[in-house]
Amino acid sequence: MLSFLDAYLEDYAIGASYEFGEFVVSEEDIVDFAKQFDPQYFHVDPCKAQSSQFGGLIASGWHTCAIMMRLLAEHYISRCSSLGSPGVDKIRWLEPVRPGNTLRVRATIIENRLSRSKPDRGIVKSNVEVVNQEEIVVLTMETTGLFLSRGAP
Amino acid sequence: MLSFLDAYLEDYAIGASYEFGEFVVSEEDIVDFAKQFDPQYFHVDPCKAQSSQFGGLIASGWHTCAIMMRLLAEHYISRCSSLGSPGVDKIRWLEPVRPGNTLRVRATIIENRLSRSKPDRGIVKSNVEVVNQEEIVVLTMETTGLFLSRGAP
Repeated sequence: MLSFLDAYLEDYAIGASYEFGEFVVSEEDIVDFAKQFDPQYFHVDPCKAQSSQFGGLIASGWHTCAIMMRLLAEHYISRCSSLGSPGVDKIRWLEPVRPGNTLRVRATIIENRLSRSKPDRGIVKSNVEVVNQEEIVVLTMETTGLFLSRGAP
Repeated sequence: MLSFLDAYLEDYAIGASYEFGEFVVSEEDIVDFAKQFDPQYFHVDPCKAQSSQFGGLIASGWHTCAIMMRLLAEHYISRCSSLGSPGVDKIRWLEPVRPGNTLRVRATIIENRLSRSKPDRGIVKSNVEVVNQEEIVVLTMETTGLFLSRGAP
């Protein structure tokens, strides 16, 4: 795939779709993250999690978001032109992420326009899916990123 | 404030608003999280971050979400009746979170209804704000949680 690491606004073409990354989620990762940030029993206690509705330990949804961000930062968000993100919409945790799962990201560009107030930059919206090794989509969201235009002074 | 740790669906009253928690964000926390999940230079490199648009190191937006989750888990999400969350909407990172900031959460209940398909549970929607020590709202989102009804078998 195209690398976006040195991309500018113009390189994010509406309709284009990319798949990238590989992140293996271990039980230790799941428990470590959840002990810090989301200590619900089905995220931190493999034994008690067996009797939960999920039938076993699952990752915090925010852990899945963080892993998604790691893969986006490695492959999709330009290191030359990114100005950060004002926000994201419609996060849906569709299926549990379990120990041993391998996650990757699929991103589809749905909008790309110049900023009206600051014409040196623009706004890129992407539909993002996190997919596991069985091709099951575990998370979807819509994200907005700000990027410098290639012609920016 | 009312503690929600042993609450059921019926205890989340529409219109009620609560403030809770205190989390001091250190530079070390910011860099550690970002090295794992969001290694953009303004999250991991205090020196280079000086010349960024943010004028210094700031926390990854996903780190702010994770801290918010920690405060929600400690104070707001029932340990008796929570069945997890299908998703969240409208995350907006309104202001940077910087080293030394102290964050707390303000949550307002905007919807509470029984599930049509599974009448032993219901859906609670909340507007969540993360506020810093200067009363500045740094993050907003709308979250959906599933909770067992008190009358559930």
